[in-house]
Amino acid sequence: MSVTSELARYVVEARADALPDAVRREAMRAVLHLIGCAIGGCRHATVEAALAALGDFAGKPQAGLIGRRERLDVLNAALIDGIASHVLDFDDTHATCFVHPSGPVAGALLPLAEYIDVSGAAFLNAFVLGVEVECRIAKAVIPAHYEIGWHLTGTAGVFGAAAAAGKLLGLDRQRMVWALGIAATQSAGLRESFGSMCKSLHSGRAAQNGLSAALLARRGFTAAEQGIEGRRGFAHVASTTQNFAAITDGLGQSFELMRNTYKPFACGLVVHPTIDACLRLRAAHGLTEPQIERVDVAVHPIVLELTAKRTPRTGLEGKFSVFHSAAIALIDGDAQEPQYSDARVTDPAVAGLTARVQASADPKMHKEAATVTVTLRDGRRVETHVAHAVGSLEHPMSDAQIDAKVRGLAADVIGAERTEALIALCRDLWDRPDAGAVGRAAAAR
Amino acid sequence: MSVTSELARYVVEARADALPDAVRREAMRAVLHLIGCAIGGCRHATVEAALAALGDFAGKPQAGLIGRRERLDVLNAALIDGIASHVLDFDDTHATCFVHPSGPVAGALLPLAEYIDVSGAAFLNAFVLGVEVECRIAKAVIPAHYEIGWHLTGTAGVFGAAAAAGKLLGLDRQRMVWALGIAATQSAGLRESFGSMCKSLHSGRAAQNGLSAALLARRGFTAAEQGIEGRRGFAHVASTTQNFAAITDGLGQSFELMRNTYKPFACGLVVHPTIDACLRLRAAHGLTEPQIERVDVAVHPIVLELTAKRTPRTGLEGKFSVFHSAAIALIDGDAQEPQYSDARVTDPAVAGLTARVQASADPKMHKEAATVTVTLRDGRRVETHVAHAVGSLEHPMSDAQIDAKVRGLAADVIGAERTEALIALCRDLWDRPDAGAVGRAAAAR
Repeated sequence: MSVTSELARYVVEARADALPDAVRREAMRAVLHLIGCAIGGCRHATVEAALAALGDFAGKPQAGLIGRRERLDVLNAALIDGIASHVLDFDDTHATCFVHPSGPVAGALLPLAEYIDVSGAAFLNAFVLGVEVECRIAKAVIPAHYEIGWHLTGTAGVFGAAAAAGKLLGLDRQRMVWALGIAATQSAGLRESFGSMCKSLHSGRAAQNGLSAALLARRGFTAAEQGIEGRRGFAHVASTTQNFAAITDGLGQSFELMRNTYKPFACGLVVHPTIDACLRLRAAHGLTEPQIERVDVAVHPIVLELTAKRTPRTGLEGKFSVFHSAAIALIDGDAQEPQYSDARVTDPAVAGLTARVQASADPKMHKEAATVTVTLRDGRRVETHVAHAVGSLEHPMSDAQIDAKVRGLAADVIGAERTEALIALCRDLWDRPDAGAVGRAAAAR
Repeated sequence: MSVTSELARYVVEARADALPDAVRREAMRAVLHLIGCAIGGCRHATVEAALAALGDFAGKPQAGLIGRRERLDVLNAALIDGIASHVLDFDDTHATCFVHPSGPVAGALLPLAEYIDVSGAAFLNAFVLGVEVECRIAKAVIPAHYEIGWHLTGTAGVFGAAAAAGKLLGLDRQRMVWALGIAATQSAGLRESFGSMCKSLHSGRAAQNGLSAALLARRGFTAAEQGIEGRRGFAHVASTTQNFAAITDGLGQSFELMRNTYKPFACGLVVHPTIDACLRLRAAHGLTEPQIERVDVAVHPIVLELTAKRTPRTGLEGKFSVFHSAAIALIDGDAQEPQYSDARVTDPAVAGLTARVQASADPKMHKEAATVTVTLRDGRRVETHVAHAVGSLEHPMSDAQIDAKVRGLAADVIGAERTEALIALCRDLWDRPDAGAVGRAAAAR
């Protein structure tokens, strides 16, 4: 059996009306969430540099850019949307395979849906299939592929974008095989790029090159027949281990999208349990900063390895401080980008409470757990334990929480009114006749 | 010492007026030859499919396409030129590192030179540096990188295109480091694609993505500082062996371009010694087909492993037939594309002589050597031994032979008059004030 051919068959044959309700709903959540992240990132210096560098080479104004006023050709729009989606490191993460799945796939689909006629249901079905393809291909090569140094959002993302775009373009099985083969031979992205603008370029190029692969295949541009499993194909060349059953087993029976997670807070995942615990204590006891004498946090050792910045001086350093994160959660009742501004980190009340936070490592603690104890000046002590932080698979963000995250990212960029319209449109997308409306709604005016 | 930084320093500082005369001349030969190959390939189905698929997404008409009438934005022109240059498998080959060096580099530079002001000398200096960078990076990772399954014209070519374009754009050292880092994180191309249209896509994407890397770096788009040698950088991720001295030793002292070779005949290199010997016998003795009773060829065993097609029925099969190649060289006095047409392969006189060619494998024979003995109907026997076929490093094609090859590829496409003007322009390019004239001369009207 050919892995590439079997995967292509599934993508070509999978019908929108066969998608379980829960998968449809998750797709709508994921698309809305991704757009929110891209709106939040669309004015980042990385996006501005890419547009300044490449804008003069873009084509006709075929599609809008998420959060921005410019319109570019579909392929360049996919590049910019893909970059914007990942640049804040605030986009979704598959719980088991290291991929940030929505950026490459939605980055390709949103501009394409402005260019061709496509219904909301067809769009969401293609989105689900794209996520399925990239996550399954990732699962076939991890952990070796990742440990070698590849960034899966780039290397696997390009397959997801190709499959999703190919589905919307109505490719037959042979052309879908070629689209996957063209994706394979463009698969790229090094972890050495982490910490530079190239990290989010991976998501953008995956969207653009995957879309390009589907467009090429549609016109009969041929590729390897076994681009994934061939002796010189992706899995053997870019990994030392291959688990092809992860690609072909149970296609149509399970959906990788159901293992997708969203970050509620604008910092590294390891700090999220602490923040969640602080928010719960604040809400349960109406805590205010002047009441608090000290805060004790017990966490998995990895938390202190990564985020033990005792006295952060900038917003970015604040993201690497479990102390600041606890303080700001207790004071502001949130941990979004405004809580990680330079001004907030150096605010005297915030810095004062940050100094009164103590943290201890407990090897028996789960990575997704934290215990926070707040000692009040009146002598009372309140404590809570979080087993799985909000945003984890076990405790997913609610629709209302995703809406609130999107509002926080989008309202200042495209305005409150357009943000509400966008949220309503995405929640209703399955029944909409024209998926191109999403891209138009996500652009700025 | 940082490998990427040291390589960037060299590229940034290398002056055109420091290039030895022999290197300047070789650069002019390589550029002319590459353009000839791209003109010959510019109407191939691969190019037509790429244009049909992507043309609607291209930008303003900033640059011509080699051999064609369309004008595209610079980045898409680089893609199409890069594909056209490699699609006939007739472009140049570095003698020791598996790279087809000119396609990615000239593919990036020719459109760019139509977009910005650049002199012929600056253009050729950038071309030499691009070839230097891609071949040195290739040498640092072969043979492991190739054996794993990577196609070096794609994976190393993107660095060459980035360095060359970055040189023309006047990047400083930091930005050149980033350009190489952006190239590294886009490096791609699987050998599984051989035999499909994707093989030449590698050359095109290398040109386009390398050019894009330089354009991004110019606008401050950051990348890894050690994109080549870092722990998660190109050399460690895409190879199991690394020879960084091959990148940094003797920069400016030797030039990889001087180990570049050109294919005189439109078939695989292994058949070239046989063809060369037949041409010499034909010229020396005025041989004609009716005179010839039989032909005996002694060659390295690899020749019969790869090209033992006894009775070819199509032009493509003719390329894999040492018998047809010997016959056609003796009858037509050449072995270009017309000699590998379906009609020529099935021509009765050609097929008749093909049947009278015998070949034997001699393990003591060098791969670049052949002995050919022709027995005439009048009883005479004439024989010659070729130690190094024309086109090898030891017996390079003359300027006149390159001109003739270019004429054969180009005259039917852009016309004889424009072909002669193009040849004259390239031969004179060093002293021309405007390198953009080359791209304009190479386009069709």
